Amino acid sequence: MDYQIFEAGDVVLQSGATIRSAKLAYKTFGTLNAAKDNVIVYPTWYSGQHYDNEWLVGSGRALDPATQFIIVPNMLGNGLSSSPSNTPEPYNGPRFPRVTAYDNVHLQHRLVTEKFGIERVRMVTGWSMGALQTFHWGALYPDMVERIAPFCGSAKCSRHNFVFLEGVKAALTADTAFAQGWYKSKPETGLRAMARVYAGWGFSQAFYREQLDIKALGYSSLEDFLVAFWEGFFLPKDANNLLAMLWTWQNGDISANEIYNGDFPKALAAIKPKAFVMPGQTDLYFPPEDSAFEVKHMPNAVLIPVPSIWGHFAGGPGTNPKDVDFIDAKLKELLGS
Amino acid sequence: MDYQIFEAGDVVLQSGATIRSAKLAYKTFGTLNAAKDNVIVYPTWYSGQHYDNEWLVGSGRALDPATQFIIVPNMLGNGLSSSPSNTPEPYNGPRFPRVTAYDNVHLQHRLVTEKFGIERVRMVTGWSMGALQTFHWGALYPDMVERIAPFCGSAKCSRHNFVFLEGVKAALTADTAFAQGWYKSKPETGLRAMARVYAGWGFSQAFYREQLDIKALGYSSLEDFLVAFWEGFFLPKDANNLLAMLWTWQNGDISANEIYNGDFPKALAAIKPKAFVMPGQTDLYFPPEDSAFEVKHMPNAVLIPVPSIWGHFAGGPGTNPKDVDFIDAKLKELLGS
Repeated sequence: MDYQIFEAGDVVLQSGATIRSAKLAYKTFGTLNAAKDNVIVYPTWYSGQHYDNEWLVGSGRALDPATQFIIVPNMLGNGLSSSPSNTPEPYNGPRFPRVTAYDNVHLQHRLVTEKFGIERVRMVTGWSMGALQTFHWGALYPDMVERIAPFCGSAKCSRHNFVFLEGVKAALTADTAFAQGWYKSKPETGLRAMARVYAGWGFSQAFYREQLDIKALGYSSLEDFLVAFWEGFFLPKDANNLLAMLWTWQNGDISANEIYNGDFPKALAAIKPKAFVMPGQTDLYFPPEDSAFEVKHMPNAVLIPVPSIWGHFAGGPGTNPKDVDFIDAKLKELLGS
Repeated sequence: MDYQIFEAGDVVLQSGATIRSAKLAYKTFGTLNAAKDNVIVYPTWYSGQHYDNEWLVGSGRALDPATQFIIVPNMLGNGLSSSPSNTPEPYNGPRFPRVTAYDNVHLQHRLVTEKFGIERVRMVTGWSMGALQTFHWGALYPDMVERIAPFCGSAKCSRHNFVFLEGVKAALTADTAFAQGWYKSKPETGLRAMARVYAGWGFSQAFYREQLDIKALGYSSLEDFLVAFWEGFFLPKDANNLLAMLWTWQNGDISANEIYNGDFPKALAAIKPKAFVMPGQTDLYFPPEDSAFEVKHMPNAVLIPVPSIWGHFAGGPGTNPKDVDFIDAKLKELLGS
């Protein structure tokens, strides 16, 4: 096991449900220095686990374990932290409670403070749903976090993004084998259908037009890309876990809590940390226009579109080296400021 | 019955299969004049039937029955022309043969010439898959057709568009009730799933951002839009029909025939008729970039993006009055030239 578990006890969620003996799985890179001022928090993305975040960590990178102490907390529902797939009865499977990004970040804050005694965070950064959690760190702990760098993500799930996810969910659950989540063996047809729905959204029209699935990623045909990359990506994952995280995504909103009471501009305005907000220029479900709205309402933010035709995958997980270098350079710039 | 049937006899398709006693359903508006030079052909779109095309026809419109003779041929597979749902055994249901846009337009040409003795067509126009058929008219009968006006469609299904449709197909067929097309009652879950997948693609991010589903179309909530508009749209349709037309769409290519042998630029270059190619500026599956490529290779074409945030529905079916007026004005301009 290459990660640790933070035993959080009984965690009461925004929904009112309780995860008993809640577990937050995390991995750290580097060493916390004596001043405890070299901390970077780097949450995971939809269905990703901590090792899926490692592409941005390394010697010579902004996230360099030689100088930084990088904490990668696994999102609830991702199969390592408390999830439908690993929670004992009676809160297992489709009974796993609905978890918000707020719940996630609140728990991550406990890890950072209770486990490590950290009072300042140099930077929070993340891709996609990792960006959603990054925005939450900025809005919920603006005095603790010095910088945020959300990329290819948003502070609130847009209506269009919500609809895209409705399609993903409908495809998975249309498989009768899903059985309202009480499946005994995996709903394979549904997982494959979900993958095919996702395929059109994940990369841009231009990516497919330029045949980068073949020419850059090395798949032997478009169908090979759909089977080997997309179906291969979703098939190993647990359907209830995927749906739990999907709910978290659809209901992501930094203002959906007792602090901001649904006032989204107010929550954005409260994000004091210096922010580099980096949408993918051709991202189909986190379009730059939504990021521009966020930046306009944030007091200390800069909009930096990632110039790429890789769609949502401009931001990760390390799929396109050129985009990785672009994001890494911006993170260095932000850390140096 | 507000339409006619052209009995086409035994039609041999590109695939080698034969539709026996093939039927082409069509409706006409206006009167064919003595010179037979007032003809407009206006094919239908994915799952649409002739009455779904009427929004562009009317007094004072470019397509004015007072002066034009407008022929609306129903696409094969749409439930009125020969389709999985109305073809007798043994070619019924999922055994209905694969039909190309070439097959459709070849049959439409027979209707126009054999039934009406028409030798010149003033204009062919159509939305979406209607645009695909319009491009085919231009490439297959360049000396017969004077003008074409394809809007929100393409001359060849792009790879990204193909992938989008893979998602739609996977969602529908994930429903076990679909039973490989041998369903006894309709695969309702699959049809609803397909509708939800389609919902994110049909309209643009900006459409949903501006809440035009509520503010312009009058639905009471986003979920109401998904159920009443989208699920309500697909539920009455036959699943095998939808899949037959989807295959036609995915394999649409004006050069996939013995004339052009897959040379797409060559087929585009052969489209001599004056052409107004009108993509929707925010269409997610027929993006303007693909239209620009087409226009670049066509000898007599103008690219005219429809300035609209209605996504694919900038082009039809009459959903946004402002876009209807824009397209109508351009059709008048083209007819007058």
